[in-house]
Amino acid sequence: MKGLFITLEGPDGSGKTTILDMVKKKLEEKNIDVITTREPGGTKIGEDIRDIILSNDNVALADETEALLYAASRAQHVSQVIRPAIEDGKIVISDRFLLSSLAYQGVGRELGIEEVKMVNDFGTKGLQPDMILFFDIDPEDTLKRKTADEAGDRLENEGNTFHRKVYDGYKELIDKYPENIKIINARESIEKVSNQVLDSIEDLIDERRA
Amino acid sequence: MKGLFITLEGPDGSGKTTILDMVKKKLEEKNIDVITTREPGGTKIGEDIRDIILSNDNVALADETEALLYAASRAQHVSQVIRPAIEDGKIVISDRFLLSSLAYQGVGRELGIEEVKMVNDFGTKGLQPDMILFFDIDPEDTLKRKTADEAGDRLENEGNTFHRKVYDGYKELIDKYPENIKIINARESIEKVSNQVLDSIEDLIDERRA
Repeated sequence: MKGLFITLEGPDGSGKTTILDMVKKKLEEKNIDVITTREPGGTKIGEDIRDIILSNDNVALADETEALLYAASRAQHVSQVIRPAIEDGKIVISDRFLLSSLAYQGVGRELGIEEVKMVNDFGTKGLQPDMILFFDIDPEDTLKRKTADEAGDRLENEGNTFHRKVYDGYKELIDKYPENIKIINARESIEKVSNQVLDSIEDLIDERRA
Repeated sequence: MKGLFITLEGPDGSGKTTILDMVKKKLEEKNIDVITTREPGGTKIGEDIRDIILSNDNVALADETEALLYAASRAQHVSQVIRPAIEDGKIVISDRFLLSSLAYQGVGRELGIEEVKMVNDFGTKGLQPDMILFFDIDPEDTLKRKTADEAGDRLENEGNTFHRKVYDGYKELIDKYPENIKIINARESIEKVSNQVLDSIEDLIDERRA
């Protein structure tokens, strides 16, 4: 049986990482094994690339370089982790994937959605998630949360205007490719957000494995 | 006055790096200032990317990742070094550029010339050299030279079949895009090769700045 590939998307600080940990535990209690991973990163090579992208020293990083490094990290992630797991029948959940690049680099950096998609499709041989869960919450709210307790990386430290553009980019992408995107109301309590995610994943499993 | 952009291409060990040093000195003796640089690398960020690409630890590096990392390094190189220098009227000579990716990743790794070109054009906004000097020498001869005295990096340590494919790839590219490619006979003595390169560069300067 072919596996499933699910990705979590949304603004920085929208709670994806915390929720993913909770959901993984709850699924395991129900004897549903999942592989969780993240971008940029997910492999040793990907983590090395992540360090270059997110380092606050690299203020000189050109927008095109940034987009190509994300695509390189993703290509490695797909080739070494995601595709072998899916082919092995596993359920893979990734914290961020292609939609992040389309929103952050395509719209936020104004490199163009189609151009960034083309570069990424080259890297992933066109792999698409079976379901994308978009954590919907105003970027202004999440950024307030984040900067209160930690320093933030190079991307997080971009100003509000950039993060607003990225959020609007996500909305544009949801209008453009609505097929397998589900919107999660990420303004609610952690418990409620986690239940929305869990229900969506279980529905997908039931539907695909019926 | 707009500057000039010249690139040196050819198999590993074809003498590009040594010759470039000699030619730079000879041009400076004639009061012609040139900026010399290299790929992958040429910037601090590019050197970090170079380390990932060439490390013998990274045997797991996927072909697509390799191509995207070269393109990322090149995007940074163009944005931070090459384009500003050309716009400032300088003569820039780079040890390797786009044609290396088309030969090594497009043909050698079989990712496709057009596909690799598209990813690189995204990164460089389509920047093309004014002249490409191809160091023509059988890869079997150069590899014998190299492995005798040093360990070699991940790319150099690919077998003869790979390097033969890359060489044939260069020949295919020269047939395909002959316009601004000049063939340097790199089988001759260092002195003779260096004179061929020097003459080609001086001819180009005379022609463009007449």
